[in-house]
Amino acid sequence: MSETLIQRIKELEEEVEKLKSQLNGNHTETNACPNNNKTNGKKGKKACKERPFDFSAHPRRHVALRLAYLGWAYQGFAVQENTDNTVEARLFEALLKTRLIQDRQSSNYHRCGRTDKGVSAFSQVITIDLRSTQYSGLGVSVPEDSKQDTAAAPELPYVKMLNRVLPRDIRILEWAPAAEGFSARFDCQSRTYRYYFPRGSLDVAAMTDAAKRYEGTHDFRNLCKMDVGNGVLQFERTILSATVEPADPQRADGTHPHDLFVFEIKGLAFLYHQVRCMMAVLLLIGQKLEAPEIIHSLLDVHNNPRKPQYSMAVDYPLVLYDCHFDGLSWKRDAEELGLAMSSLQQHWTESAVKAHVLRDMIRGLDATSGVSSGLCLLVEGSRQRKYRPLLERPLCESLESRIEHFVKRGRLEREQDEAGGETLHKGKRSKYSQNSTGAAAEVVNASPE
Amino acid sequence: MSETLIQRIKELEEEVEKLKSQLNGNHTETNACPNNNKTNGKKGKKACKERPFDFSAHPRRHVALRLAYLGWAYQGFAVQENTDNTVEARLFEALLKTRLIQDRQSSNYHRCGRTDKGVSAFSQVITIDLRSTQYSGLGVSVPEDSKQDTAAAPELPYVKMLNRVLPRDIRILEWAPAAEGFSARFDCQSRTYRYYFPRGSLDVAAMTDAAKRYEGTHDFRNLCKMDVGNGVLQFERTILSATVEPADPQRADGTHPHDLFVFEIKGLAFLYHQVRCMMAVLLLIGQKLEAPEIIHSLLDVHNNPRKPQYSMAVDYPLVLYDCHFDGLSWKRDAEELGLAMSSLQQHWTESAVKAHVLRDMIRGLDATSGVSSGLCLLVEGSRQRKYRPLLERPLCESLESRIEHFVKRGRLEREQDEAGGETLHKGKRSKYSQNSTGAAAEVVNASPE
Repeated sequence: MSETLIQRIKELEEEVEKLKSQLNGNHTETNACPNNNKTNGKKGKKACKERPFDFSAHPRRHVALRLAYLGWAYQGFAVQENTDNTVEARLFEALLKTRLIQDRQSSNYHRCGRTDKGVSAFSQVITIDLRSTQYSGLGVSVPEDSKQDTAAAPELPYVKMLNRVLPRDIRILEWAPAAEGFSARFDCQSRTYRYYFPRGSLDVAAMTDAAKRYEGTHDFRNLCKMDVGNGVLQFERTILSATVEPADPQRADGTHPHDLFVFEIKGLAFLYHQVRCMMAVLLLIGQKLEAPEIIHSLLDVHNNPRKPQYSMAVDYPLVLYDCHFDGLSWKRDAEELGLAMSSLQQHWTESAVKAHVLRDMIRGLDATSGVSSGLCLLVEGSRQRKYRPLLERPLCESLESRIEHFVKRGRLEREQDEAGGETLHKGKRSKYSQNSTGAAAEVVNASPE
Repeated sequence: MSETLIQRIKELEEEVEKLKSQLNGNHTETNACPNNNKTNGKKGKKACKERPFDFSAHPRRHVALRLAYLGWAYQGFAVQENTDNTVEARLFEALLKTRLIQDRQSSNYHRCGRTDKGVSAFSQVITIDLRSTQYSGLGVSVPEDSKQDTAAAPELPYVKMLNRVLPRDIRILEWAPAAEGFSARFDCQSRTYRYYFPRGSLDVAAMTDAAKRYEGTHDFRNLCKMDVGNGVLQFERTILSATVEPADPQRADGTHPHDLFVFEIKGLAFLYHQVRCMMAVLLLIGQKLEAPEIIHSLLDVHNNPRKPQYSMAVDYPLVLYDCHFDGLSWKRDAEELGLAMSSLQQHWTESAVKAHVLRDMIRGLDATSGVSSGLCLLVEGSRQRKYRPLLERPLCESLESRIEHFVKRGRLEREQDEAGGETLHKGKRSKYSQNSTGAAAEVVNASPE
């Protein structure tokens, strides 16, 4: 959202100021003390430990946290080597600053999914061990030599504490105590994504028909970016539902080009860029450049073992909308939700107003109010040339070829199993080799969108 | 729009890189030659005159240009001393780069209005003398000693030439030849503004009723920011129409908080910040904090000679939507309009998609889908405290007091006129004193929003 872009601009402007000062021989250093909860940890400074905090003296609690964030100003959810600008980086700064964890390594942290650069989430869930005031209760573990405090203080207000130090476009919505061993990654029952797009001149009915064909259990290797190097060797995934619906159900009449629709897809687990690839194909079908049957061809990996080259859909319309877990008792803070709502409303107001300013300019230029056809606006890469049908395009490398590539480099190893078949596991030269087992060591990439 | 914010981010990122290089002892200087039409003139470098261009050898043509621009990334339309980031700065760079003018001072430039920081325009009009290929035709003036070229070449493609070098969020829409003496500023028949806002929990019917009360000729000193220092001494203005309507006429049913409305106001000329002050009062009426009758009180300068203190509405929803001129024959370039439309559509897509992402998050947080009341989101300054009625608030300085202030400083001078009344004109110490005449030298601020 524009507000997050504006925040990015402010950050950059501050950085420009700082660099200018440095150029002028004034060195500005700030010593952000984590005790100051008001400090915005955006610049990612290491928490200075002025007063060593004795975590071992406190109980810990295994909890789930549900987050929402606008991904437009970040380089993705997961921490990266080459940038500090990730949602996780901000999250861990907040967890350290509030002394809810001692460090990431010991915090027993699992995340439900990863979202890519530009992708937002309304429901990202993590599990983690946080400092607690409780000596009993679900998820609590008490230090061995602590004296039991029988007068039970209320649990720490995790949501409030974190939201106070997180940037405004990252919010903790609720928390839940979790049994030891409960994992955001492995205990997720289903994940739901939404992709928003305008009608333009798309044949939405064809797209709706096509979407349904994604449902079921299929090999999606032709509808993702293969990540063999990370150990993803198996591409069967189950899509529980895939629909295209108006974003405004009460406004479902009419065929206005400026109406918005939502591609909503619910599955157990997703491959890397899977939703954006699926959306890209739907957009081709909507533009009548492909027939809905193309989906069957792409899912028929026996006859089409190699993926045709096509660009995936752009990032900003994608939202990880829900991660579903059974057995968690979520706890909300009404005031915090109100604050989050206010903030979202401000963002929405600005986006919606600007959208209308732009739309009326478009209408002003064209009395017939048409949106130009060929809505390739949502697909990465260059625009319309002469269209080349998917099945006639150059192909990407096959799975076997990629496996061979990594076997040669020692990052995967083949083994004969007992039945005479072959299994693959991470090789000695893999950076994950200490995790390798005899079985095909597929990394279950839960939601690597 | 986000794209312009993203451009700003790119600019800042480039600047950060440049400063970093400088810190590292590498000095990067670029020599932008205006002959290269592809150069983006955004950094405002002076055009280097490598090949002196003999303007006097070419005909000139007095023309009107109609521009559209998104004001969100700029510090306003008019050139300013303390920043280069204005629409006019980009415009003049383009005019110089394309050698359509020699310099601003000799270009006979008039603008229809000024828009403030953050304010956009769908129809800003300027008049100016541009280089021409024509030796006859409306607006053409031919150099004295030129040989007449009887084979008439087509006129220069002004719209194309300028759009090629302007930033994407500033577009020339059309041009028209104009008779000598025709002025964008003084020959404008009417100006129309639009202000977009969401319904929220506003009483839009009351706002619609109230808006009508603005119509007619009134003294608007209580609904503007007085600009006495610039010679604005008279505050009567004529509002031809003032309405509040749904932004989506076909969706006029229902009372959804997320519906957008438009305050549209058409007048001959406007005072500084007039529309935003008028909108602020409408928002108070919509929140039921004031009655529609407050407008009569504010327009009754006899009983209420001093303006109550209140904040004006924010900038980004405001658009200078139309400037109307009689007698101009506008010429469009269909391809250019198509390109401008494409660009707007891309902007719109991003805004509209993000608005829907945000809106669904809001709905997800609140099943009852309510937008919180007190939609002060569109008013500058702090949020709700206990509300203080306008007529009970502290008052701003009166007009007489401000005049006195400037008379004391020599920037205005009083004079007795023949009838024994008093007139004011710019004083010797005014920076405009060379323009002063005996008559009340009011600056007709056409559209200083």
